[in-house]
Amino acid sequence: MRAPATTLIRPVEWRDGVLRILDQTRLPHEEVVLECRTVADVEAAIRRLAVRGAPALGIAAAHALGLAASSDPSTLRQAGERLVATRPTAVNIRWAVARVVRVADGGGDVLAEARAIEREDEDACARMGELGAALVPDGANILTHCNTGMLCTAGIGTAQGVIFTAHRAGKRVHVWVDETRPVLQGARLTSWELQRLGVPMTLVADTAAASLMARGLVDLVITGADRIAANGDVANKIGTYALAVLASHHGVPFYVAAPTSTVDLEKQSGSDIWVEERDVSELTAPFGVALAPDATPAFNPAFDVTPAGLVTAIVTERGIVREPYRERLRRLVGGDAA
Amino acid sequence: MRAPATTLIRPVEWRDGVLRILDQTRLPHEEVVLECRTVADVEAAIRRLAVRGAPALGIAAAHALGLAASSDPSTLRQAGERLVATRPTAVNIRWAVARVVRVADGGGDVLAEARAIEREDEDACARMGELGAALVPDGANILTHCNTGMLCTAGIGTAQGVIFTAHRAGKRVHVWVDETRPVLQGARLTSWELQRLGVPMTLVADTAAASLMARGLVDLVITGADRIAANGDVANKIGTYALAVLASHHGVPFYVAAPTSTVDLEKQSGSDIWVEERDVSELTAPFGVALAPDATPAFNPAFDVTPAGLVTAIVTERGIVREPYRERLRRLVGGDAA
Repeated sequence: MRAPATTLIRPVEWRDGVLRILDQTRLPHEEVVLECRTVADVEAAIRRLAVRGAPALGIAAAHALGLAASSDPSTLRQAGERLVATRPTAVNIRWAVARVVRVADGGGDVLAEARAIEREDEDACARMGELGAALVPDGANILTHCNTGMLCTAGIGTAQGVIFTAHRAGKRVHVWVDETRPVLQGARLTSWELQRLGVPMTLVADTAAASLMARGLVDLVITGADRIAANGDVANKIGTYALAVLASHHGVPFYVAAPTSTVDLEKQSGSDIWVEERDVSELTAPFGVALAPDATPAFNPAFDVTPAGLVTAIVTERGIVREPYRERLRRLVGGDAA
Repeated sequence: MRAPATTLIRPVEWRDGVLRILDQTRLPHEEVVLECRTVADVEAAIRRLAVRGAPALGIAAAHALGLAASSDPSTLRQAGERLVATRPTAVNIRWAVARVVRVADGGGDVLAEARAIEREDEDACARMGELGAALVPDGANILTHCNTGMLCTAGIGTAQGVIFTAHRAGKRVHVWVDETRPVLQGARLTSWELQRLGVPMTLVADTAAASLMARGLVDLVITGADRIAANGDVANKIGTYALAVLASHHGVPFYVAAPTSTVDLEKQSGSDIWVEERDVSELTAPFGVALAPDATPAFNPAFDVTPAGLVTAIVTERGIVREPYRERLRRLVGGDAA
């Protein structure tokens, strides 16, 4: 069952030769659409997090190549390289660019391929939702991190898609939404989406997750992923690894939901994944409010790596994978890339 | 060795019949002093976190009773009850109020007792610093949480006092200062203090602590405490418990530094400690910036409880305590209250 089209929020949308990007930095208080007409427009939107979330980044990059192809097809490969460089941790941009360039090299239609990637992602979300919802008990208190919903996919989302599907199927679920410092995707985006969908939720500070678990108020944790290595190690938004350690300590299952496009069989383990660092002003002056003293030294890694041993299961559109991950992920994704 | 007086920041200072409170909500960008002339002034300052930190709260409350005694001694007991109600988790207010009221009941000088509490706290900080610094290896990367420095004591601080003493003794230390959502005492106050003292530091998001540990970049964690139960369970700023679990997972020692005035032998364990909840606007609209959608449900516990089993040692001014805590804390604090 696919989510009714009316409930979908489109983070990126191709219309009349323009890639329309919903500016997520302005949410939840303003819905502003950026009209991108060049690859540079899309690059800028990605860099400042107007569009974010691994699957949506892949879809945006594929359509950006549609913009390049319509203006000057000879720039396609270089445009792809620039797009890949915008966000080095999430693999989906590289995956989408490689796929589109391969089609273009074969004389195929760039835009049609971008649209295929988008449609497939929508279907993958629906399928992850169905498969993952089986892991969610009735009455579950679910802790999630960052934003993994419609805003970062072409469908109902990855981890949030699982939650939404369980809710829509009549299970009574309640979601602990953690803020997700430093960019607060949980407070700003996940809160907005879940309330819009009528899913019961409560916002908490990232620092409160452990005591919720200690009080027995978390039945499962589910997050998305930006890149999954061949051995099942998961790179995701900074803070994910802490939740996995805490879940393990408290005997709470820790699930990851991500389409197979997020699996990178070329990375043998998490230590091969490059963790992007973002501007320290996200810490020293969040949202323009100078909080720390001027020139405070800061370190702002955007992602962390959760070892496969802490991951109870990975929900993909092709099935739910459990340990041993290496063998099972390779079989699922298709051994050719390994 | 006591810290040179010139380096001390005074969070509260009695001068000419007025309790001067440095407004910590305005730091680090403005140094504003609130002149409190009544108990109600002090109560208001405590409630809005202008003064905070367990020992400083005790000192502020003791001096507030000095204000009450000088206007109408018959109001002393009632004033004490109102002060205790401002912050129910930190035990130091109750401890200081009980001590001052006992002296007043015996016909003693309220203000002299308040000053004695202040001087003893300054000495306790110096002593904790000396004892605790022995736990800090040369070259240590130290992770700390919240603010535990001069701003929350009459001396060099509790956990930060330990760090400062190690630094002053010539040990090369570097401090990871976590932001400490939701009120960001780490980003705003600890960053400011450590830079003022010339202690090398780097600000990180709370969500980054786990990956610092995974990378081997944390040699020890040290925090303060708001209340320590008879069995060694430690109530402290929300997020402390997560750090203790993470430290245990990574084999990193987890220390607590707190004066014996923070030990409450009447509480048998952490489950007897009442955890204060603060206004959810700290999460939905931090520092006046509306981030979450309007009316987002939120849960904002201000503290959590770390079980004694995760605490490597507690540094007090009377000695360093390790497991078994119940017996050793009772001996240290004086069995009379048990």
